[in-house]
Amino acid sequence: MNLERKKVAVFRKEHFNAAHRLHNPNWDDATNTAVFGKCNNPNYHGHNYELIVQVTGYPDPQTGYVMDMKVLSDLIWEHALNLFDHKNLNEDTTAFKHLNPTAENIAVVIYDLLRPQIDAALDLKIRLYETERNFVEYPA
Amino acid sequence: MNLERKKVAVFRKEHFNAAHRLHNPNWDDATNTAVFGKCNNPNYHGHNYELIVQVTGYPDPQTGYVMDMKVLSDLIWEHALNLFDHKNLNEDTTAFKHLNPTAENIAVVIYDLLRPQIDAALDLKIRLYETERNFVEYPA
Amino acid sequence: MNLERKKVAVFRKEHFNAAHRLHNPNWDDATNTAVFGKCNNPNYHGHNYELIVQVTGYPDPQTGYVMDMKVLSDLIWEHALNLFDHKNLNEDTTAFKHLNPTAENIAVVIYDLLRPQIDAALDLKIRLYETERNFVEYPA
Amino acid sequence: MNLERKKVAVFRKEHFNAAHRLHNPNWDDATNTAVFGKCNNPNYHGHNYELIVQVTGYPDPQTGYVMDMKVLSDLIWEHALNLFDHKNLNEDTTAFKHLNPTAENIAVVIYDLLRPQIDAALDLKIRLYETERNFVEYPA
Amino acid sequence: MNLERKKVAVFRKEHFNAAHRLHNPNWDDATNTAVFGKCNNPNYHGHNYELIVQVTGYPDPQTGYVMDMKVLSDLIWEHALNLFDHKNLNEDTTAFKHLNPTAENIAVVIYDLLRPQIDAALDLKIRLYETERNFVEYPA
Amino acid sequence: MNLERKKVAVFRKEHFNAAHRLHNPNWDDATNTAVFGKCNNPNYHGHNYELIVQVTGYPDPQTGYVMDMKVLSDLIWEHALNLFDHKNLNEDTTAFKHLNPTAENIAVVIYDLLRPQIDAALDLKIRLYETERNFVEYPA
Repeated sequence: MNLERKKVAVFRKEHFNAAHRLHNPNWDDATNTAVFGKCNNPNYHGHNYELIVQVTGYPDPQTGYVMDMKVLSDLIWEHALNLFDHKNLNEDTTAFKHLNPTAENIAVVIYDLLRPQIDAALDLKIRLYETERNFVEYPA
Repeated sequence: MNLERKKVAVFRKEHFNAAHRLHNPNWDDATNTAVFGKCNNPNYHGHNYELIVQVTGYPDPQTGYVMDMKVLSDLIWEHALNLFDHKNLNEDTTAFKHLNPTAENIAVVIYDLLRPQIDAALDLKIRLYETERNFVEYPA
Repeated sequence: MNLERKKVAVFRKEHFNAAHRLHNPNWDDATNTAVFGKCNNPNYHGHNYELIVQVTGYPDPQTGYVMDMKVLSDLIWEHALNLFDHKNLNEDTTAFKHLNPTAENIAVVIYDLLRPQIDAALDLKIRLYETERNFVEYPA
Repeated sequence: MNLERKKVAVFRKEHFNAAHRLHNPNWDDATNTAVFGKCNNPNYHGHNYELIVQVTGYPDPQTGYVMDMKVLSDLIWEHALNLFDHKNLNEDTTAFKHLNPTAENIAVVIYDLLRPQIDAALDLKIRLYETERNFVEYPA
Repeated sequence: MNLERKKVAVFRKEHFNAAHRLHNPNWDDATNTAVFGKCNNPNYHGHNYELIVQVTGYPDPQTGYVMDMKVLSDLIWEHALNLFDHKNLNEDTTAFKHLNPTAENIAVVIYDLLRPQIDAALDLKIRLYETERNFVEYPA
Repeated sequence: MNLERKKVAVFRKEHFNAAHRLHNPNWDDATNTAVFGKCNNPNYHGHNYELIVQVTGYPDPQTGYVMDMKVLSDLIWEHALNLFDHKNLNEDTTAFKHLNPTAENIAVVIYDLLRPQIDAALDLKIRLYETERNFVEYPA
């Protein structure tokens, strides 16, 4: 089988927990409450985030792997999730010091952290579940 | 971060229950039974449908949202699911009076109901689970 | 290992779909609507029911089985689910001709159908999911 | 069918999000870190909690319900989850002002909030998922 | 509704169990262990594989089906899963006699087995879960 | 709150993969095939096992924990799952050298391995999923 011409996507799912608050510092409190509702609570709330990292390319004919899932998992933790797990995204991270930690923005930030760590010949996509009912994908 | 150039998909999952029957009125009973089997039961059967609505676009730099999930959820119920939830799709709805309520057709109908309610700059996609093992996506 | 003195519960999960309507024929329409709400829809609605049958006893030392799961699955279908799958519980079944098909009552009916089919030395329990968020167990 | 002699358990699942921090104020920082690890982060982290409330009793022969799930859901929110959803358990609640918000303690607190709201003839049990892999049940 | 111009994807999920071992016969044992770790165990390990087969095309206006899910399920078993279910992929199958049974390769093999069985006008895609946390998709 | 009188169960979920074969060496091949069917395949098949360990007792008033879930997870791996994960249960383990590796027997074996490692004042129960549809619990 000539795997070099068969493009496959591989997916690795990871889990992390964090506190956050949605807030735009350029707005007054009434506007923040009107737009973000309960998610604007000044003392924060939190989530169990489920992250799925998708890497797409041609399987290596020697291994049959697009990428070793153990290596991918380690990269995800070393370069992204160790910064966020059991943290307050607004208070404890540089990424969200001046960026609203919506699911959309967290997905983009994780993409930007992982992109330099993954072989440039491989495509990268991030899916992030904030809850079972609300999730995002980047790039779309 | 220049979010205006980062296209993100956001997904909202909703749940509804309905009765339905698969049936082609142009066919005789034997053909309907041969094609639709148990799903042709004249007294109907039913499902817990899981609906995932995907909206794709550029996050608003003020909110970090492609679209407010609460607004999206309200639109889904107001313009689509209130018509179908705890209903008999064949008997209680205009959409399926003359259209077979297969998962494929339900997904297309929901798309057509929601498309005018969502900003034209945003892409829309519907995923509908009829059971955990049978589901559809439109547009493909 | 003396398995004869080690009591183990085994569980088998099955899936069926049905239409139903909650209704008390001794009440007027206003009372039925007040009590059962959308579930009283005269044209029915429906569900994907998940059934978990629990059988408890001592593993057979020759097989290591409390009960063969294939045999249990066949009994569940032959004596219970074939009566209900892709049916209208109110219209197509004798069990619910004069019994309101609430999840509680469906669980009791399934128990009563299966109890004579299972060795009397084994305990039997039924768990029934009407939706992911509403489920029942009998006997409690 | 004489339902009055058939005891059934009914279960309702609800979801809430909260921030929290595990901390014993009687201990120094080193002890808190040694015991609670990442969960002691002073700026909090958070979870999507899944709550399952179990109520056990005899179905009402008029309704076939042990308890109306809509009524149960409303009680859960009015008397418990509205206090915790999108909140910081340590900072925003009286229940955890002086009580460590472990899953065990949250389950006991929710039980104590709901017990007076449920008919004394019915048994009550709480299952709380802090993550998919860590959960608790009370009373055991 | 002109369904002939509405392209829909339909998905069918199936389950199978198998033993396997990851191994490159061109490498020595040390290299195999270094690359494949626990997955190189000479006596095999195993998985519950979840397979999702996606078929994309235009619904038939007579049925409202892109493809009958019962027909698709039967094709999946007849032409692919009967070869692998409750088997040792390395020992009991011709497909993996000389091909490493990584999730990537299993997905490609299943695609190649099913492609000739599905109408050429329909697109085909395979998603395969080796575990809940590791899965692949082909073609990507 | 007097937690010392409030008994709580805590649950920890872990995952492992293994190959196995159901076989009774005292029977001839025809009997083994008749009883165990595809599960008797001489070259083995395999599963993703999900293990839930339940520990019941009184929360420690200093921590609010019945037991530290990290400690419990480490005990589960050190004393049980490291013996079985990515192994052939029949060939690679002493526990199943002469014991048929049914789900019932695996649950009893894991109980017996963990029981001496858990404080005798705490109750222990094992739930083991062989597949999503077949699972067991011990002691029942």
